[in-house]
Amino acid sequence: MVSASVKEKVIRLMEKISENLRLIDETTVNRMIKAILRTTGDRRIFVVGAGRSGLVGRAFAMRLMHIGLNVYVVGETITPPIKTGDLLIAISGSGETRYTTTIAQEAKKLGAYVVAITSYPESMLGSTADLKVIIPGRVLDSATRDYEARQISGEHEPLTPLGTLFELSSMIFLDALISELAYRLGKSEEDMASRHASL
Amino acid sequence: MVSASVKEKVIRLMEKISENLRLIDETTVNRMIKAILRTTGDRRIFVVGAGRSGLVGRAFAMRLMHIGLNVYVVGETITPPIKTGDLLIAISGSGETRYTTTIAQEAKKLGAYVVAITSYPESMLGSTADLKVIIPGRVLDSATRDYEARQISGEHEPLTPLGTLFELSSMIFLDALISELAYRLGKSEEDMASRHASL
Amino acid sequence: MVSASVKEKVIRLMEKISENLRLIDETTVNRMIKAILRTTGDRRIFVVGAGRSGLVGRAFAMRLMHIGLNVYVVGETITPPIKTGDLLIAISGSGETRYTTTIAQEAKKLGAYVVAITSYPESMLGSTADLKVIIPGRVLDSATRDYEARQISGEHEPLTPLGTLFELSSMIFLDALISELAYRLGKSEEDMASRHASL
Amino acid sequence: MVSASVKEKVIRLMEKISENLRLIDETTVNRMIKAILRTTGDRRIFVVGAGRSGLVGRAFAMRLMHIGLNVYVVGETITPPIKTGDLLIAISGSGETRYTTTIAQEAKKLGAYVVAITSYPESMLGSTADLKVIIPGRVLDSATRDYEARQISGEHEPLTPLGTLFELSSMIFLDALISELAYRLGKSEEDMASRHASL
Repeated sequence: MVSASVKEKVIRLMEKISENLRLIDETTVNRMIKAILRTTGDRRIFVVGAGRSGLVGRAFAMRLMHIGLNVYVVGETITPPIKTGDLLIAISGSGETRYTTTIAQEAKKLGAYVVAITSYPESMLGSTADLKVIIPGRVLDSATRDYEARQISGEHEPLTPLGTLFELSSMIFLDALISELAYRLGKSEEDMASRHASL
Repeated sequence: MVSASVKEKVIRLMEKISENLRLIDETTVNRMIKAILRTTGDRRIFVVGAGRSGLVGRAFAMRLMHIGLNVYVVGETITPPIKTGDLLIAISGSGETRYTTTIAQEAKKLGAYVVAITSYPESMLGSTADLKVIIPGRVLDSATRDYEARQISGEHEPLTPLGTLFELSSMIFLDALISELAYRLGKSEEDMASRHASL
Repeated sequence: MVSASVKEKVIRLMEKISENLRLIDETTVNRMIKAILRTTGDRRIFVVGAGRSGLVGRAFAMRLMHIGLNVYVVGETITPPIKTGDLLIAISGSGETRYTTTIAQEAKKLGAYVVAITSYPESMLGSTADLKVIIPGRVLDSATRDYEARQISGEHEPLTPLGTLFELSSMIFLDALISELAYRLGKSEEDMASRHASL
Repeated sequence: MVSASVKEKVIRLMEKISENLRLIDETTVNRMIKAILRTTGDRRIFVVGAGRSGLVGRAFAMRLMHIGLNVYVVGETITPPIKTGDLLIAISGSGETRYTTTIAQEAKKLGAYVVAITSYPESMLGSTADLKVIIPGRVLDSATRDYEARQISGEHEPLTPLGTLFELSSMIFLDALISELAYRLGKSEEDMASRHASL
C-alpha cells in the first residue's frame, strides 16, 4: 500500500469527523445544554474520562471554567464530593471503560444527573446515564446506520486507530457546544480571557 | 445575533480547521517525521505544553507510546532527564507561553533537538526551535497570509475563542502524523491495541 | 480545649508515626524488597493509589526511577499495559478504595504480582494482594493490637484526620525502603541526581 | 558498610525529621496561619511546587479543601487566574526550582501574597516571598546552625537523598498546620469527611 501524505490523511480524517458529527442528535444536544445551564448557585459540573477521552474531558472542563461555570475534573486534587443536583459528564467511546462507568454509577447513586458522551447507547455507561449524547466512533455501516464499530481487523491502514475518531469528534463537538454556551450566557472572548489561568 | 445551532457551529469549525490545515508545509512535516523516527535505542521523545496545548501533547504522546516509541511527558512522575540526542516536541499556539518556552530553552541547552508546534515562527518558542511546524491559529489575513491572529476583539461571537483553532488543528494534524508514523513503522491497529494501557 | 501549638502538634504527630512504624513486619518488608529487585529486564513496577495515597505512591515511584528501576504510575500518559511478571504496588489505607482495589484485581488477573500497602489485611485490597505490608492507620487499640481504626467520632481534635497517619507513615516507610534499595543496588546520591528530571 | 535494616532506617529518618522540625520558627508559622485564615470570600489559596515538593503541596491542598477553604493547585485543569488579595504557597527545598520561582514571581507581580516553604531564605524563591517558612533540608551544621546543605558527596549512604528530608519534614509540618487550622476554624473530622471526594 502506498502511504498517503500527512496532508491527504488530514483531509480523510476531516471527512470522517464531518460525516460522524452530522449524525449528532440536536434534541439531545439541547437537553445537554439545558442540563449545563441548570448548574448555577450550589450546583456544579463534574467531568470524567480515562485516557484520551479524559484529556478531551479536561479540555472541555477548562473552557467551562472560562465561561464562568463551576466545574471540577474527577481525580484532581481539589475536587469536592458530588451530591444531589450536580451534573456529571462522562466520556467513553466504548461506554465500557471500567474507571468511567464506575464513577458514573457512583455519581448516579449519589443523586447526580449523568450525561454520557459515548458511541454506544446500550453500553454500561449508556445504560447508567440520564442523557446519552451519541458520537459514533470508527466507520459506521452506512446501510444499517448502526453505531457498532468495525472490529479491530488490521486489514486497514489505521487512519483512526482505537478511539481516535470518537476522541477527535468529541473534542470538536464539545468546542462547538462551548461556543453555543458562551453565546447563551452572553460571554465574550474577553470574559473568557479574563478567566484564563495566569500562572 | 441569532445563535447558530451546535451542528452549524460544528460545520463552521470544521471549515476553519480544514482551511487552517491546508497551510501546513509538507517539507517541514517530513523533517518532523524523520526527527521522530531517529529516536531509537537510547534516544527518547519528550512532549511539553501548557493548558489545552498540554492536553493535545499528552494525547499525542499516548499514541507515540502505542506505536512503540520511547516517549515521556514533561512534568509527569517518572520522566527522566533529557540529554543530547533526545527530541523535545513543544506545543504553544502563541509560542510565548512561559512554561513551554522555558522548557524548550532548557532542553536546547542540554543538547536536545527541539521541534516547535506553534502559530508564530518568530515567537520565543519559534526562535528556540530547530524545526518549526506552523499551525495557524484563529483567522488568517487572506491577503497577507500572515500568521498574526486577529486581536481579541469581542466583536465576534467566539466560535474559536483563545487557542481553540490552534488546539483542534494541532490535535488533528498530530493524529494524521500518528497514522503516517504507524504506516512507516509497520504498526497495525492490533500492535497499537496490544500496547494500550490495561489498567 | 486549648489548642496545642503547631510545634507541639508536630511532636505528637511524630510520636504517633514512630509508634505506628514500629509495628511493621520486617519479614514482609524483606519479601517486598525481593519483589522489587526481581523487576529487571522486561519486568516493570506499577504504582497505584487514590487521593493522598496516590500522591505518596507517586513520590515513591519518582525515587524508584531515580535508583534506575523501570516504574510507571497507573493513569499517567505513557503507562504501558501490565503483564505477567510485572509488579503492582497498590496503596490504600482502608484497603477498600474502589479505584485502587479495581486496579489491583485487574492486575492480578493479568498475571502481575500485587503488593498491598494498607492498614487492613482483611480488606478487599488485602485479600487481592500476594503480599501485604501492613501500616496501621489512626490509633491502634493497644490492648488488642487490632488494626481496626477508631470510628470517626468528632470527639477528638483531629490531629490525624482521615488517612493522615497512614499516609505520613507510608511516605516515611517508603523513603526508608528507597534508602535500603539504593544500598542494595549500589546507587549513590550522584547516581540518583543524574536521573533527576532536568526539565 | 553494613546496611541497616529498613526499621533502623525508619528510626534514623524520624530522628532527622524531628531534629529538623524543631527549628521551625513559631512566629513565622503564626503569620502563615493568619495569611491562610484571611482567604475568605473572594480570596483564594493557590499551591505550587515541582516534583516531590509538588506532591507535598497537593497533599496539603487536598486537606485545605477538606477544611472548607478555597484552594487551587497551579497547573490543574480548572485553576483560575490569581489576583490581588490571593495567597500563593510555593514549595521548593532549594528555592531555586525554575518552575516554582517563576510562578512565585508572576503571582507577586499580579498582586498575590507569597508564602515560601523552603530551606533557603536567600534563594530566588525566598527573596521573592512575602513570608518565608524555613524548613531545613539535609543535615544542618550544628555548630553554625547554618541552613546550607552539605553538597552531594556520595560518601554517605543516601538515607535522605536529594530533597527527601525537606519533603518529609514539609509534609509533616503541613499536616500539623492543618490540624491547627481545623481547630481554629472549628472543623471536626466529620466536617472534613463530608468534603472528602466521593468519586
